[in-house]
Amino acid sequence: MTRTNGGVTAPKGFKASGIHAGIKAAPILDLALLVSDVEGPIAGVFTNNRIPAAPVILDRLHLKKPYGQAMIINSGNANACTGAQGLLDAEEMAILVAKRLDIPPTSVFVGSTGVIGPRLSMPAIRNGIPLLMQRLRKSGHRDAARAIMTTDTTMKEIAVHTRIGKHLVSIGGMAKGSGMIHPDMATMLAYITTDAAIHPTVLQALLREAVDSSFNTISVDGETSTNDTVLCLANGMAGNPMLQAQTGNAKIFQLALNHVCQTLAMKICQDGEGATKIVEILVRGAKKDHDAKQIAKTLATSPLVKTALFGEDPNWGRFMVAIGRSGPAIQPKHIEIAFENVTMVKNGQEVTPSKERQVQRVMKKKSYTISIKVGKGKGSSKVWTTDFSYDYVKINASYRS
Amino acid sequence: MTRTNGGVTAPKGFKASGIHAGIKAAPILDLALLVSDVEGPIAGVFTNNRIPAAPVILDRLHLKKPYGQAMIINSGNANACTGAQGLLDAEEMAILVAKRLDIPPTSVFVGSTGVIGPRLSMPAIRNGIPLLMQRLRKSGHRDAARAIMTTDTTMKEIAVHTRIGKHLVSIGGMAKGSGMIHPDMATMLAYITTDAAIHPTVLQALLREAVDSSFNTISVDGETSTNDTVLCLANGMAGNPMLQAQTGNAKIFQLALNHVCQTLAMKICQDGEGATKIVEILVRGAKKDHDAKQIAKTLATSPLVKTALFGEDPNWGRFMVAIGRSGPAIQPKHIEIAFENVTMVKNGQEVTPSKERQVQRVMKKKSYTISIKVGKGKGSSKVWTTDFSYDYVKINASYRS
Repeated sequence: MTRTNGGVTAPKGFKASGIHAGIKAAPILDLALLVSDVEGPIAGVFTNNRIPAAPVILDRLHLKKPYGQAMIINSGNANACTGAQGLLDAEEMAILVAKRLDIPPTSVFVGSTGVIGPRLSMPAIRNGIPLLMQRLRKSGHRDAARAIMTTDTTMKEIAVHTRIGKHLVSIGGMAKGSGMIHPDMATMLAYITTDAAIHPTVLQALLREAVDSSFNTISVDGETSTNDTVLCLANGMAGNPMLQAQTGNAKIFQLALNHVCQTLAMKICQDGEGATKIVEILVRGAKKDHDAKQIAKTLATSPLVKTALFGEDPNWGRFMVAIGRSGPAIQPKHIEIAFENVTMVKNGQEVTPSKERQVQRVMKKKSYTISIKVGKGKGSSKVWTTDFSYDYVKINASYRS
Repeated sequence: MTRTNGGVTAPKGFKASGIHAGIKAAPILDLALLVSDVEGPIAGVFTNNRIPAAPVILDRLHLKKPYGQAMIINSGNANACTGAQGLLDAEEMAILVAKRLDIPPTSVFVGSTGVIGPRLSMPAIRNGIPLLMQRLRKSGHRDAARAIMTTDTTMKEIAVHTRIGKHLVSIGGMAKGSGMIHPDMATMLAYITTDAAIHPTVLQALLREAVDSSFNTISVDGETSTNDTVLCLANGMAGNPMLQAQTGNAKIFQLALNHVCQTLAMKICQDGEGATKIVEILVRGAKKDHDAKQIAKTLATSPLVKTALFGEDPNWGRFMVAIGRSGPAIQPKHIEIAFENVTMVKNGQEVTPSKERQVQRVMKKKSYTISIKVGKGKGSSKVWTTDFSYDYVKINASYRS
């Protein structure tokens, strides 16, 4: 697998564009289009939130026939909590694109991100679509990736290619999201393209696997916003023999897809709202993986832990509090906590002589790992988290103003 | 029931004291003692945390014989995650007080609050106890209430009396805690005294009920620190006929006890770390009370909701996100959100014309109620929460330094 330049248009047969349609007040890009020359299998993973936004409801419906050819995504408005009208608006977005491309509306997938509640400005979208079509090109990936940003401070895209037999298969991706690892994250959207030939059920299984080891590692256990969406469209133009489940070729593709998803997830993590650090939390020794995940999640979302990370304060007691309240039965006397390779807590107590100074040095780093052993079981889990800074409060106290 | 001056020494037969023993570096009170002239029934409610501190383990043990006569509490050190040595230290505190008072060590209850991890300074405690004994007096309630404070900015105490038949029964209380309504709260301690004559099992049931409708309403569902403790000692010196379960007299006592606990809980809430507002969140229309509680809890602990409260931003979408991810099945189209008497969301959508301005006026208040209807069920729940301010991050990023 090789990293290449570009984004969602790196695979064969994809074009993209991004324009300012006027959904956002500021004169910045807010509408993106992504089109494949031919229809192909599409897979999707969506929010678990009980109040899904209109485009999520529409996409889930369209995915019942798992073939697609285009995606239209707006930023500036989430089209969430907008009732029946919101659904009609999302559907109209798909229909307008479908008409222009002369394809069925069910082949068009829709995404929205931004403020929850107000109705989408349909005049802006209707007026924008012709220009969006006109601008479609191979080099449009950057504009598309920019047009889906909200509080993001950086554009997020990636492309890789890998060999499957004698065929070069490419995967491209773009994402938006920031601060997503907080308990009720801002919307995370990711759009992945590939020219691989693959059956839709295989694609869905591989995407689910890739999402679990990437976006779900930072989003912490499916606590997702109303709009979260990951879609992967495979147009088959690489000409490889159809990828079959459980084969070596599928494995090669899985690794490349994982890399694309993990890279986008890390980019989102690095762009955490007000985050100054990224910390990996590894929990092991739990009875089950599920227990380990619950403990890791409690640590990753604890405001007291996150402010300690920001303060570079080796206040391991806060970790103990969070571990103790996370739910799973644990043996306090087996707990070990290490910051990188410095073990600060052993047998549930601080080691003597204290390693506080060494730990403080680790905590000054921008990125490091905290390993936590909670018992003698085989359950383990890994999550990424960020710190809680003054800026987090600042950004979120005034998001709409 | 009448509110009176005083605190834990308001009921007959109680004395208290507080001194600087040297557990804290600063020359402020850090060791408290509370003694009854006679032994009496004692009830306790403790943290659910899986890593209880040494004094919690000791108190639970002593409570197996539910009679007590004295409580010794230190601040500055939590005696948590201190292993077998921590247990021996907590036990020694009880033994030292017991010797001085010539009572069994099991009649002495111990509390600690402060930094987790380091061993308690036993020389400071050993040297402090004689002075603590010497200072014991009726007027010592203030010193005791001050000596248990950590990040608290205000001392928290209350006293009430009520008539049970022709007997005047008093209840007094002191508490410490601040920022407790955050997901992994700082330690909350509350010590309640009464001169009521009551059987220990009745006292335990009444205390549990009072805690559920007070401290557990702000602590949000038992997500507690390593040290949280509520103890209630009843010495019987009021001379009332023994309070029996399910009687009118027990009901009168319950109301007074609830008032004491609720007042202390509100004082803790008002002293939330960096909090600028107290907001009551009422959830109704859920299938079960448990569902309503889960939704209320998710809202009360959501950083995005809490920063919106701080920013006085009627960003109701954040409430929808939190409701949707909280777990229980809800009907998005039945959701209503009102700020005091201003309904902003109805049928899951913003009402037109928008009530944003009116809601903004409500949100400028220091304290207000947000009512949320999530369906047509009969389950309801109420929690108190505070906002998340810059100061919250500041206090918690530098707690130990």
